[in-house]
Amino acid sequence: MENMAVDQRKGLQSLEFADPVSIISSASIVGPKEGEGPLGEYFDLISPDAGMGEENWEKAESALQREALQVAAGKARLPLKRIRYLFGGDLLAQICATSFGNEESSLPFFGLYGACSTCGEALTLGAMAVAGGFADYAAAVTSSHFGSAEKEFRFPLAYGNQRPLSATWTVTGSGAFLLAAQGGYVKIAGVTPGKIVDMGIKDNMNMGACMAPAACDTILRNFLDFNRGPEDYDRIITGDLGYVGQEILIQLLRERGFDLSERHLDCGIEIYDRESQDTHAGGSGCGCSAVVLSAMILPKLRKGIWKRVLFVPTGALLSKVSFNEGQAIPGIAHGVILEHS
Amino acid sequence: MENMAVDQRKGLQSLEFADPVSIISSASIVGPKEGEGPLGEYFDLISPDAGMGEENWEKAESALQREALQVAAGKARLPLKRIRYLFGGDLLAQICATSFGNEESSLPFFGLYGACSTCGEALTLGAMAVAGGFADYAAAVTSSHFGSAEKEFRFPLAYGNQRPLSATWTVTGSGAFLLAAQGGYVKIAGVTPGKIVDMGIKDNMNMGACMAPAACDTILRNFLDFNRGPEDYDRIITGDLGYVGQEILIQLLRERGFDLSERHLDCGIEIYDRESQDTHAGGSGCGCSAVVLSAMILPKLRKGIWKRVLFVPTGALLSKVSFNEGQAIPGIAHGVILEHS
Repeated sequence: MENMAVDQRKGLQSLEFADPVSIISSASIVGPKEGEGPLGEYFDLISPDAGMGEENWEKAESALQREALQVAAGKARLPLKRIRYLFGGDLLAQICATSFGNEESSLPFFGLYGACSTCGEALTLGAMAVAGGFADYAAAVTSSHFGSAEKEFRFPLAYGNQRPLSATWTVTGSGAFLLAAQGGYVKIAGVTPGKIVDMGIKDNMNMGACMAPAACDTILRNFLDFNRGPEDYDRIITGDLGYVGQEILIQLLRERGFDLSERHLDCGIEIYDRESQDTHAGGSGCGCSAVVLSAMILPKLRKGIWKRVLFVPTGALLSKVSFNEGQAIPGIAHGVILEHS
Repeated sequence: MENMAVDQRKGLQSLEFADPVSIISSASIVGPKEGEGPLGEYFDLISPDAGMGEENWEKAESALQREALQVAAGKARLPLKRIRYLFGGDLLAQICATSFGNEESSLPFFGLYGACSTCGEALTLGAMAVAGGFADYAAAVTSSHFGSAEKEFRFPLAYGNQRPLSATWTVTGSGAFLLAAQGGYVKIAGVTPGKIVDMGIKDNMNMGACMAPAACDTILRNFLDFNRGPEDYDRIITGDLGYVGQEILIQLLRERGFDLSERHLDCGIEIYDRESQDTHAGGSGCGCSAVVLSAMILPKLRKGIWKRVLFVPTGALLSKVSFNEGQAIPGIAHGVILEHS
């Protein structure tokens, strides 16, 4: 294996991998609502039951992760035990969906928490593990579930609480990705790990506004580190800013001299039909960017319809305790450069 | 930088770094109870107020992390902005102590959750980042707080609930570590990342029993991967098994042909005085192994009193939701090989 040419230009935070890391397989598993959305036909599995046949939402979310990883490994015909390290996370307290979802696999495990940006965090660390020569195969798996997330952050579903139009709908789904030094059809060419960005926003029903400044920060630093602009990417795709956050992001970047309006997509906007699905500002959750990456973004890169994409899962860093104690909601966004190969 | 000679002997999970990674600086900050314990004189800072002058336990824990990182950087005379990546975590839901503790530092950030094993997880990923050539300097910071942890997992302190003798006492403290390719006095020579081990134990007042099988698994795999036994380490030091878990670990390893009794220490046992401090089975928390590593283990390695230590922070993977839904409490333990240099 060659030395790593680490890009530390300008002293900022991006890495450019000398040998880009391959995404050799992926899988997406979603619930029925996601299956009814515009991307329905592209998911690997749509469960007819958001409960996945389990007795509670948390176990249902664990089942999503377990199956996503199995399907991804199955597609690559790779026995699970060949995976050297598993990077995973979810939104729940103590990332319990992930712990219980992956204990059967018995893989060396790194638990991650980056709120809805966790898919980007897992891909970044997994790519570093492969590019550093530490793993033949690494896996990244993340999930979210509407029922478990509402219970965790807002109210149990049975309360039937109303939601403002700025609120997003947590995606029920899990995406899994297998990374390797060779093979595959899409490469991770580089990463721009995120910083915690706190603009003092305190509205937990408007996560898009909380996360847009972090997405802006990561995208700007990616442009600076790689000496690029929007024109160097076929698409710049954020995780779950939704309609509200998208508008803020485009405005923030316009103020800094970059026009993203022609090239920006948001996984949270893509996954639901705004008119018919009553999801207000869009989708969100660690599962949102993960399943859209697997079902929509990677296939377009594989076919060469897109040559280079900046994938930027976004996360809002809060707990119900920090929120109730009056803390603001900082954001974080992890940028991953994906290229057709 | 040389290529990494990655040790994948036996297809298991350890790594041996071709160029061991240096711990160039560390810091430990604790609350008053820890300051009154047997290691009191060795901590860098003892706050006279467990509340750290903040208005709630969560903000107090964030303050511990913030100060620990600043002190560690100050000792190394390294401006914070030179740290390329920060790896951090804590026990709270959505690791909020870490998010709010580190937002001011404005460093590229990877949020981790490995329960009380998070110090080992952060050191492992930080060492991989440095050994892979991805960071000149990486930092690992973890914390726990008795008040925030009791509120998170059991009852608010004001309830004055009683605790069984098998319960541990969550350490109020934070440890921070700076990693680099060169310099320093103690090296990370290798790692054995942990697997999730679930023996079906469901007693959240007996974490030692939940975690001991995971510690056993990691230590055994370390022995196998490196072809070593207890005699190859001056000490094998677990995170927070406490008295109950220590006994189980020694028994489990004895059944597999290894006698750890002469060489085993546990950070949770070292940090409090069993007779006078009313801490029952010992100390616990992400802060426990971190502050003991900084205050006790690293100095002995630096002076050469110990030449090689296997440091094994242990974690119990549960949330109050998973516990109340009747799930078992799996454990995880991340092994880090520390050597005098």
